[in-house]
Amino acid sequence: MPGYKPGDKVEIETVDGKYTGILMERPELADDKHVVIKLESGYNVGISLDRIREIKKIEARIKRERFRLKRHKRDPSKRDISILATGGTIASRVDYITGGVHSAFSAEELISAVPELEEIANIQGRQIFNKFSENIIPEDWIKIARTTASEIKKGVDGIVITHGTDTMGYTSAALAFMLKTPVPVVLTGAQRSSDRGSSDAPLNLIHSAIVASKADLSEVVVVMHGEISDSFSLIHPGTRVRKLHTSRRDAFRTVNSRPLGRVSMKGIEFLREPKSDNKLKLDTKLEERVFLLKYFPGLNPEVIDNLVELGYNGIVIEGTGLGHTSELLFERIKDAIDSGVFIAMTSQTIFGRVNMNVYSTGRILQDIGVIPCEDMLSETAYVKLMWCLGHTKKPERLREMMLTNYAGEITERSRIE
Amino acid sequence: MPGYKPGDKVEIETVDGKYTGILMERPELADDKHVVIKLESGYNVGISLDRIREIKKIEARIKRERFRLKRHKRDPSKRDISILATGGTIASRVDYITGGVHSAFSAEELISAVPELEEIANIQGRQIFNKFSENIIPEDWIKIARTTASEIKKGVDGIVITHGTDTMGYTSAALAFMLKTPVPVVLTGAQRSSDRGSSDAPLNLIHSAIVASKADLSEVVVVMHGEISDSFSLIHPGTRVRKLHTSRRDAFRTVNSRPLGRVSMKGIEFLREPKSDNKLKLDTKLEERVFLLKYFPGLNPEVIDNLVELGYNGIVIEGTGLGHTSELLFERIKDAIDSGVFIAMTSQTIFGRVNMNVYSTGRILQDIGVIPCEDMLSETAYVKLMWCLGHTKKPERLREMMLTNYAGEITERSRIE
Repeated sequence: MPGYKPGDKVEIETVDGKYTGILMERPELADDKHVVIKLESGYNVGISLDRIREIKKIEARIKRERFRLKRHKRDPSKRDISILATGGTIASRVDYITGGVHSAFSAEELISAVPELEEIANIQGRQIFNKFSENIIPEDWIKIARTTASEIKKGVDGIVITHGTDTMGYTSAALAFMLKTPVPVVLTGAQRSSDRGSSDAPLNLIHSAIVASKADLSEVVVVMHGEISDSFSLIHPGTRVRKLHTSRRDAFRTVNSRPLGRVSMKGIEFLREPKSDNKLKLDTKLEERVFLLKYFPGLNPEVIDNLVELGYNGIVIEGTGLGHTSELLFERIKDAIDSGVFIAMTSQTIFGRVNMNVYSTGRILQDIGVIPCEDMLSETAYVKLMWCLGHTKKPERLREMMLTNYAGEITERSRIE
Repeated sequence: MPGYKPGDKVEIETVDGKYTGILMERPELADDKHVVIKLESGYNVGISLDRIREIKKIEARIKRERFRLKRHKRDPSKRDISILATGGTIASRVDYITGGVHSAFSAEELISAVPELEEIANIQGRQIFNKFSENIIPEDWIKIARTTASEIKKGVDGIVITHGTDTMGYTSAALAFMLKTPVPVVLTGAQRSSDRGSSDAPLNLIHSAIVASKADLSEVVVVMHGEISDSFSLIHPGTRVRKLHTSRRDAFRTVNSRPLGRVSMKGIEFLREPKSDNKLKLDTKLEERVFLLKYFPGLNPEVIDNLVELGYNGIVIEGTGLGHTSELLFERIKDAIDSGVFIAMTSQTIFGRVNMNVYSTGRILQDIGVIPCEDMLSETAYVKLMWCLGHTKKPERLREMMLTNYAGEITERSRIE
């Protein structure tokens, strides 16, 4: 509707009566026959366009990107944390026409809906953007990293970033490489929208606020439900965490390492030593022309040439087993590397360490110049290759950087393995 | 060495003395300065070319692609099984120069090395080819399916296929779609080469032979170690199994379902009802221009156009969460579908079911024509799309086939979910 923006308060007169509420975003291309407004009761109603007689704007959209909760005065005995909102299910509600879920809550609404937060810390909030995380692009990682750094500079004791769950692992890895932080930086989200009784949003937020305000932790972590019931959440290292289920509340798991700890209403229990001494450093240099290529039987070698032609500077191959691809690709991989493209290898098994010394396949790939990514997650290796290529294009230095453990992404090989 | 083939029995006179043994394959591009022969003791030695004075061929390579073990006579009280060898670690040994592992054993050697097999069944063997499984291409799946069908026609009671572990899940899915089988078809392999004390090869072979000869089972399964010790193996459904660790002996897991059962020296224990009534049917039609595309933040939409230009007829997108990609891809995906390319969606979370009705992202993608692959593994969906496209290019029929449960690859949605 021209002249109206999502967030505007409107009065709509229909053939059946009047409705007053906030005009909601309708991102579906599929349905341009309804408008949806959120009533003061909190419910959304969809109104068919052909039933509308008149629309009046009562109040233009209130844009409050930055705010401080004011129900209580700042309590000097409590720590200060910033909650930075980026969208996702945690900021969503069910659409009662379609049964679908879409973005609805601002950071302020989201935080206001969980009064327990103010018992834990003094809360400030800020909306960075409002996106489902499948729409997040590397540029957004940089925005989040910059905003986080600027909040830390203002002197807060911890940061909570609310984020969609789909690509949270990629963002947490990106932040882990881009940010050295003196305070906890906690990403959290929800697998069920915040207006459902079964939502995991409130507890994930509360647990995240506990970690952000109370943990002696200077790194980027993800805090999400540790089991399907509302008992505890796990604190996952930012470069080691992966969404391993489409829908379960405990979908997030630490891979090839252990969670840093667990958090419940009783407090935080560390399972291993967290980092607790970092100076703030922001380093967002990123090379965007990097491709994450999952290998599969039948993958035509032409694809490698093609990525080179398209101007990619780096490729992470998610290979098979210990870090393999078909020998049919060797020549193209060699040509790509000879032409200046950096190629790194992870495994689609998810768990375990790449070892390219055992089989001839791996040894040849190493001889050609492929960099074995140790026990890094494919998603983390992809983000890391972007970040490393943002810093150097020299082969020796790039290899050295890829094999250096910057943010907990590599475990040193143990003898027992 | 011109004039000599791997498998030839040779006598090599060096500056230090004479060696007699079988000339081994040296697949490494890296090292053309040594030959390797297998001595009668079973050990491999590497001999530097510049130390060789003379080589004599004692016996040309004995090619025995088909054989029957003859140490015992056929025991009419036992069932007959065929062991079909395709290569992989199970048929490999350590190379004591490089520490690497490469192909060494023929089917006959492999089977002869496990005398327990003849206690279980009457064994015939056949070498289909000898490849590490990362080198297996869809054409090889067809070869394996055809050989398996022809063995079944000869009247054997069960089939064991030895195979590399890297892409075993893809092959088992392919065989499950291509073969209706009245007898057990069991794929097995090893995570440690057969000449090591710690090898899982003998027990995997023995357990597979037990399943092939004794189970009332008419489907394609994978039998591999169920835990790291040599206690039991799991019987995984062929379309549900995934290698989930680079190196552990119990790397194979059933995903989004339960194993069919477990097998140990005590016998078989079924955990759920296996299929036990099928007539032999071989249907190997396959469309090879299918791509498995893992989504990642920053994936440039140009890649979709590019795959269309390269002539791909199908793309399985391994999306995020419930089956999503960035909205930046929607237009290109729509163009691709409009131009006749079939696009199906799975999730990179591995576990859980795709549900494209919850979020606008999923609903739009469905409206555009993307086929949601329910709780199918990405690898299985890729193989299935190839197989379905081998049978129809009609959109309605293709969609119907993709959503039909042909080989246990889809579980009906339960209410509890």
